[in-house]
Amino acid sequence: MSPDGQPGALMAAEVAEQPQSLARLLDTQLGAIQLIAAKLQEADPRFVLMCARGTSDHAAIYFKYLVEILLGLPVGLTSPSTFTAYGSRPQLDDVLWVSVSQSGGSPDLVDSTAAARDGGALTVAVTNAPGSPLAVASEYNVDVVAGPERAVAATKSYTSQLLGLYLLADAWRGGDASAARGLPDFAQQVVDADEGARAAARYRFVEKVVTTGRGYAYPTAREAALKLMETCYLSAHPFSGADLMHGPLAMIDETHPVIAFVPEGVGGQAIEPVLQRLRETHADLLIIGDPNRAQGAADLIALPAGIPEEVSPIIQIIPAQQLAYALSVSRGGDPDAPRGLRKVTETH
Amino acid sequence: MSPDGQPGALMAAEVAEQPQSLARLLDTQLGAIQLIAAKLQEADPRFVLMCARGTSDHAAIYFKYLVEILLGLPVGLTSPSTFTAYGSRPQLDDVLWVSVSQSGGSPDLVDSTAAARDGGALTVAVTNAPGSPLAVASEYNVDVVAGPERAVAATKSYTSQLLGLYLLADAWRGGDASAARGLPDFAQQVVDADEGARAAARYRFVEKVVTTGRGYAYPTAREAALKLMETCYLSAHPFSGADLMHGPLAMIDETHPVIAFVPEGVGGQAIEPVLQRLRETHADLLIIGDPNRAQGAADLIALPAGIPEEVSPIIQIIPAQQLAYALSVSRGGDPDAPRGLRKVTETH
Repeated sequence: MSPDGQPGALMAAEVAEQPQSLARLLDTQLGAIQLIAAKLQEADPRFVLMCARGTSDHAAIYFKYLVEILLGLPVGLTSPSTFTAYGSRPQLDDVLWVSVSQSGGSPDLVDSTAAARDGGALTVAVTNAPGSPLAVASEYNVDVVAGPERAVAATKSYTSQLLGLYLLADAWRGGDASAARGLPDFAQQVVDADEGARAAARYRFVEKVVTTGRGYAYPTAREAALKLMETCYLSAHPFSGADLMHGPLAMIDETHPVIAFVPEGVGGQAIEPVLQRLRETHADLLIIGDPNRAQGAADLIALPAGIPEEVSPIIQIIPAQQLAYALSVSRGGDPDAPRGLRKVTETH
Repeated sequence: MSPDGQPGALMAAEVAEQPQSLARLLDTQLGAIQLIAAKLQEADPRFVLMCARGTSDHAAIYFKYLVEILLGLPVGLTSPSTFTAYGSRPQLDDVLWVSVSQSGGSPDLVDSTAAARDGGALTVAVTNAPGSPLAVASEYNVDVVAGPERAVAATKSYTSQLLGLYLLADAWRGGDASAARGLPDFAQQVVDADEGARAAARYRFVEKVVTTGRGYAYPTAREAALKLMETCYLSAHPFSGADLMHGPLAMIDETHPVIAFVPEGVGGQAIEPVLQRLRETHADLLIIGDPNRAQGAADLIALPAGIPEEVSPIIQIIPAQQLAYALSVSRGGDPDAPRGLRKVTETH
């Protein structure tokens, strides 16, 4: 139960706080991030490895797209277990190692980051906890300054991780953060509209949901599914649009709605054939994003026009957070205290 | 419907054929694979990138563990969309690019492999179709000689991909394939026991399943979930053991059984704390693997003792294939013709 007795009060407050937490990161951390980016330019790594778990893993997937698309570097997501369970000690000269964690406290991330640093990697932690073991184990730390996050379901720390990672990638390629300047305003519009809460009503009795997106929208599909799982106990299943056509499409039926994240730009274009197949199967479809691609959808949460695609995940997840919160509360749950979960997960 | 009118006859035959398809690969392709491995030793790549979709993506995840653990190299799974949709053209000198595909026909894999080769990568395709566009686009091709696969749900082509990838990694590190020699016999024991079919009975009315595994067993959890989705239309949800503790654990309840892949060795040890948490939540648990870790489980499919962990995924998936087949048929489905699916999926 939430401290003040109102189920989900913490989560609701943290979702609504995102315009401020994003603005704070832009206002106070851009200089520090640019200094780290200068070190990256100097070191000129040839390969990027990421290390994260849970929600932070979705932020890592976003960074993977940024590195592939904006920086043209090969990038991989490591499995911490290869370091911690199997004792792998790879040669990591010329490798940039980026770990992402809200708390900076997960032992397997700390241990694998220490091993990566021993192996020659340049290590950067992106955390909401600058004094944490993970930040200390890394050469550089991006502090995402989201403020204390008390709900078990991560919301504002996630969007701040995304923004911190974007600013790092953008500064590394020599950008001036211009695509990110409008984010606090866009976030405020989405928070005020609270369209996710409105859309929650028709899912009152759903048990299974599929989420999908392509390119930059794929990590959003992953994170939205996780929010629905942890707050509403739904079986929420994320797929890249392309993977959905390889098998999972068979399980889509009238009891199995689809939530598609459709940004303006390339990711929206690329998912169009998937939307077309879903229309043919008469899938119940909620589009979050570009209203111009909502043809045949059962519902639409239109996002403001003009969000640059490369930062769109920072805004697109917000309606999904609202939906998860509202659906959990409408079902008598408490999204602040999901059964069986702890805020800091200690895996070794 | 299957050609001879017997639902799932193709899939059943292909599952049962795996001892022979594995033996054929060992008997006829090891020399060719060793020649490719010698080229890898000569080129001495510093990073590995993988590219695959669907079932083949799970084979790629297996290779990722092999590269991290046996070869100590950094490795990543690329998103074809960054090449094909976003037009990324990364610098890939010193990179080994491994694509995996049953048919070798998926345009996005062919295009991204061509782009990788242009970018300087050494390219190897692992396919069941040596004359396919993907094999032709790559410098080297590992032919997994699984024979024609006619069921939509991939089975024997998957285990042959795993074995082809293992033999490549093993030869690259200078191994002599000794861990793989026993696989046809182990596969025959598992085919003959048909324990997956026996275990299917209690899932007759299930709607949602979670699968899990750590380390080498993780790709098996992914592939098992995909088989259950595409043949039984279940909402089957795979998690690495560690990620399961980060949120999804909340959705596990008495209607939501867990299938855990537990090999002998490190992966089995590493998942023990996850099994412990699942026991505490009274989850309905089926263990596939090591009978010594089945305490508190509702059911067990014991695998033969002595399978080396690094090749265990090649055997562990077989009971899950049997289970998917038997469950589909018991529900009146036809696993050879899942609704909405095609054998070759063309994503761009």
